[in-house]
Amino acid sequence: MQDTPKTPLLDRVNTPADMKRFSDGELTQLAHELRQETISAVSVTGGHLGAGLGVVELTVALHAVFDAPRDKIIWDVSHQSYPHKILTGRRDRIRTLRMKDGLSGFTKRSESPYDPFGAAHSSTSISAALGFAVARDLGGACDTGHGDAIAVIGDGSMSAGMAFEAMNNAGHLKKRLIVILNDNEMSIAPPVGALSNYLSRLYAEAPFQDLKAAAKGAIGFLPEPFREGAKRAKEMLKGMAVGGTLFEELGFSYVGPIDGHDMDQLLPVLRTVRQRATGPILIHVMTKKGKGYAPAEAADDKGHATGKFNVITGEQKKAPTNAPSYTSVFSDALLQVAADDPQVCAVTAAMPDGTGLSLFAERYPSRCFDVGIAEQHGVTFAAGLAAGGMKPFCAMYSTFLQRGYDQVVHDVAIQRLPVRFAIDRAGLVGADGATHAGSFDIAFMANLPGMVVMAAADEAELKHMVATAAAYDDGPIAFRYPRGEGTGVDMPERGEVLEIGKGRIVAEGARVAILSFGTRLSHSIEAREALMAKGITPTVADARFAKPLDEDLILSLARDHEALITIEEGAIGGFGSHVAQLLAEKGVFDTGLKFRSMVLPDIFIDQASPEDMYAVAKLSAADIEAKVFEVLNVTAIADKRA
Amino acid sequence: MQDTPKTPLLDRVNTPADMKRFSDGELTQLAHELRQETISAVSVTGGHLGAGLGVVELTVALHAVFDAPRDKIIWDVSHQSYPHKILTGRRDRIRTLRMKDGLSGFTKRSESPYDPFGAAHSSTSISAALGFAVARDLGGACDTGHGDAIAVIGDGSMSAGMAFEAMNNAGHLKKRLIVILNDNEMSIAPPVGALSNYLSRLYAEAPFQDLKAAAKGAIGFLPEPFREGAKRAKEMLKGMAVGGTLFEELGFSYVGPIDGHDMDQLLPVLRTVRQRATGPILIHVMTKKGKGYAPAEAADDKGHATGKFNVITGEQKKAPTNAPSYTSVFSDALLQVAADDPQVCAVTAAMPDGTGLSLFAERYPSRCFDVGIAEQHGVTFAAGLAAGGMKPFCAMYSTFLQRGYDQVVHDVAIQRLPVRFAIDRAGLVGADGATHAGSFDIAFMANLPGMVVMAAADEAELKHMVATAAAYDDGPIAFRYPRGEGTGVDMPERGEVLEIGKGRIVAEGARVAILSFGTRLSHSIEAREALMAKGITPTVADARFAKPLDEDLILSLARDHEALITIEEGAIGGFGSHVAQLLAEKGVFDTGLKFRSMVLPDIFIDQASPEDMYAVAKLSAADIEAKVFEVLNVTAIADKRA
Repeated sequence: MQDTPKTPLLDRVNTPADMKRFSDGELTQLAHELRQETISAVSVTGGHLGAGLGVVELTVALHAVFDAPRDKIIWDVSHQSYPHKILTGRRDRIRTLRMKDGLSGFTKRSESPYDPFGAAHSSTSISAALGFAVARDLGGACDTGHGDAIAVIGDGSMSAGMAFEAMNNAGHLKKRLIVILNDNEMSIAPPVGALSNYLSRLYAEAPFQDLKAAAKGAIGFLPEPFREGAKRAKEMLKGMAVGGTLFEELGFSYVGPIDGHDMDQLLPVLRTVRQRATGPILIHVMTKKGKGYAPAEAADDKGHATGKFNVITGEQKKAPTNAPSYTSVFSDALLQVAADDPQVCAVTAAMPDGTGLSLFAERYPSRCFDVGIAEQHGVTFAAGLAAGGMKPFCAMYSTFLQRGYDQVVHDVAIQRLPVRFAIDRAGLVGADGATHAGSFDIAFMANLPGMVVMAAADEAELKHMVATAAAYDDGPIAFRYPRGEGTGVDMPERGEVLEIGKGRIVAEGARVAILSFGTRLSHSIEAREALMAKGITPTVADARFAKPLDEDLILSLARDHEALITIEEGAIGGFGSHVAQLLAEKGVFDTGLKFRSMVLPDIFIDQASPEDMYAVAKLSAADIEAKVFEVLNVTAIADKRA
Repeated sequence: MQDTPKTPLLDRVNTPADMKRFSDGELTQLAHELRQETISAVSVTGGHLGAGLGVVELTVALHAVFDAPRDKIIWDVSHQSYPHKILTGRRDRIRTLRMKDGLSGFTKRSESPYDPFGAAHSSTSISAALGFAVARDLGGACDTGHGDAIAVIGDGSMSAGMAFEAMNNAGHLKKRLIVILNDNEMSIAPPVGALSNYLSRLYAEAPFQDLKAAAKGAIGFLPEPFREGAKRAKEMLKGMAVGGTLFEELGFSYVGPIDGHDMDQLLPVLRTVRQRATGPILIHVMTKKGKGYAPAEAADDKGHATGKFNVITGEQKKAPTNAPSYTSVFSDALLQVAADDPQVCAVTAAMPDGTGLSLFAERYPSRCFDVGIAEQHGVTFAAGLAAGGMKPFCAMYSTFLQRGYDQVVHDVAIQRLPVRFAIDRAGLVGADGATHAGSFDIAFMANLPGMVVMAAADEAELKHMVATAAAYDDGPIAFRYPRGEGTGVDMPERGEVLEIGKGRIVAEGARVAILSFGTRLSHSIEAREALMAKGITPTVADARFAKPLDEDLILSLARDHEALITIEEGAIGGFGSHVAQLLAEKGVFDTGLKFRSMVLPDIFIDQASPEDMYAVAKLSAADIEAKVFEVLNVTAIADKRA
């Protein structure tokens, strides 16, 4: 435990209404206290630190000037929302961030009326804000009333196509809408792409040092809504013509860049915008991720995400690890296959560290492509690489691959192009909660004709699957693996190329067979051991492939056992459904088979440790054991357990 | 049949190589002949006419200047590719366009080496071209070799976020890459959005009439690759700075606008670009959709898609219809609920006509939103509208909803926002083939917690489902319906609000129950009638809901019948999988049930009539009949049929 900072002003703020009588000087002091409180809280909980520290002043200024929850402040991604949470009635729970039954690490509608639109994936805020702006003007029945719609979006998020689509639509609809571009030249990794260069040029041309004095008055050019409004707006539009800034060309008024840590710029600009804005306006705010906390500012990732840490030293308390993470196993295995084959290349969408591709980028810079937050483009770009004779590995988190689903179908699967999908963070992911769960990829990949779908049961299997994917050239192939550490199995020197569509029996047994797809294998074995003590010895098998299925294995398991249970870290419609379809088609159910398919339940599961989440999901070793009892109708024993 | 035009020059062109010795004057004449041949062919086949007519000159110029298939010409969407097909060895089959076993209406890798990357959904071409450009520079093993990568993309397609992502990435990578912006101010409907305004301004500022003389020489500013290349490129980049065009700000050189129907502009510009381009370059070409065919030019949709027609008059030969289309039933039903409820509003992604929302837009312009080709934004915008207290209907084709899948999960389902998804073109769609099939939505929607998923069995059911969706406010709800006409049932005056999660028995029977989800209901009844003649009277039921399932109905069908067969117009992982999961969990399989799930097969099915496609899919009435025989083991009768 560390000392909590002294926060006399912050102590007086329960909701933003309490800030309304603060002077500008007090607001500056409040920001200082809010920063200390944020650092203190995250030192206890771990979590996203850098992003929140970068918007402390902006958060205070927004809540001082605007009137939430009537005004809708929508934080893009929202890992920068901890200071916002502290100011909006959640300070008492801020040290439960990202914990089971605690505050979410993201904004969440069910958590607070001050979170009008939850987020976690990037680049949704402008679309949502535009929805609120239009609903306001149409008289939508909103519980918290209607005021301004304000999207706060980072420069990395702004590079996603979705944000462009929203800007394009907002510029067309011309509704009053405020977009705050929080430009810290840094999302998780430094943003890449031409937009990022453009923003740098904007700043280079007009650094805010020179604008500081002007900032208070300079935006008088905004059209006055009450006199000559229409005429002036028309002139303004005409005045932009060719040659305005990119944002003006998209129909936005542009203000900035301004210093996002200087309340003397933020407050007057926001006040003027609030008074005078008519149509869509973009305020370009320069901030520093990690601002005001030296260890974060000094870190490569600007303190993006952190474990618990010592506030004084910044030193993180890391649990000792017994086995390599799946991500690092993927990273190493890819380096190995890339060393042998110059056509192996890799694509990531703004997650070089998260996916383990940063090592690949270092070793093979010309073969590694960080496309930015742009999964749609990333997938089709990989398809183009494959069509051009390369062997692309497209490494994405399961939850983000959803962003490129149509491209997987239309550009990869229909054309049967050999793109290798490395699907990280498959299954439940822990502290990031429901928005980051990789629940749906088995279902949405395995129903695509020609797609090969694998799941690694442990880290050695993952190594084999990377080798298998590198060797496979007959169409697209995907392999999924979870967040976190492996099981500590012996690692092979090199990955072995697996036979496509073949599973393996891991432990022979009788009466009941447990067929696992993915890392529930170890829990299946654990359940088997517990069951053996109670007189039941299940067969345990590792399917390896959801597609193509190992029909021989599955039919022989069905034939030789009274009961067959499938288990996977995914929602209904995936592996278990494919097995059921096979069993049905082959007439296995005609004469009876005790078949059960253990899948993620039909709920979104809130953050907790992965183990706790899997317990909620009823996919733990104990749940497997209980399922075996249930399916064998060993009610006496099952009841005894209860 | 109509006279085929006289085409002496075109007759000499089997592949683009045959055009290489043509003079510029001959190329102009070739374009004229190609236009006549295109009109003649489409008059016989029906299909996408206007887009192809708009790029006749561009197609000739590209093939004259570049060297396909070594140079990769990638047509975005590719319904403008008919002239390209005629010039690239497929003229002999051009009158089989979009027919069973004929040429695809889109580019297709398996059809020709001149189609390096197939398309049908929009905005993929720049990503794919960038993949080719990078693969070229990395030495990818491409069968047709490596040359230039050229994306031809319309202004409508350019407004999609995916295109922006690709431009942003291309501007960053700085590879030689050619993007031709085919600006006809018209995709299917006139494009909307700020980008479209921007393009109009570009043209207003520098109409090509004035540039015509300059066009041949004006692009000498392109960096010379061989002397001072690096230095000049650097200067050029610096010169752009703030205030260049939007495309220059994204890192592209910009040339244009030029007249896309004037070979005297097209040829020299393309030749110069081919000689001199280093990094990414965008050529802005103005064209007219439907150019050169008066009936198309005069049409509202510029002859976007047409049935067979009379070349002289332009009159289309439409088959008489017996029942309203599902789309029009949706359209009418939505007008009805919107008349009663001012909070009903609608969102379409550039498909106001295709989705039937154009009537809604006429009647309620302030409540109808065409967001452009922007499904990601469209879904989240709808989520924002719902959060703001509106009742949005998000009307998209099943295949395009794939573009917004992550938004459905992350912004709608997780937040349980009451967005109504009207999913048109569900199931197999006929002439548009595999790329447009709505195969996966049941699976990818029904596995989302809290999502209600319905399918209309006929047009009256669709009307009920619109009413049900309008009335349902507890979370998201989706209803799917096919392309084409209804079955001719009596239409109710008003839609009835259905009980959520309740199906209905349509015809009582014995031994076997057929449980249909969607419009296979009529085929199930047809099969029932055929079977009755042979002594088997199946029960036929309409599930109405894939989620929540009508558990009572399903369990009672299972209990009262020897066999249960589900059928749906979707891939594995959907309705049948949910039923199988229920039956497994309830222990119904333990003691035996002849269960079969009829789903789309594990192949992408090429274009044909929907009936023919469903025959390939083995989901016809005859297939249902055969399945009943098979599952009841009535082999004698089944064999007799064969």
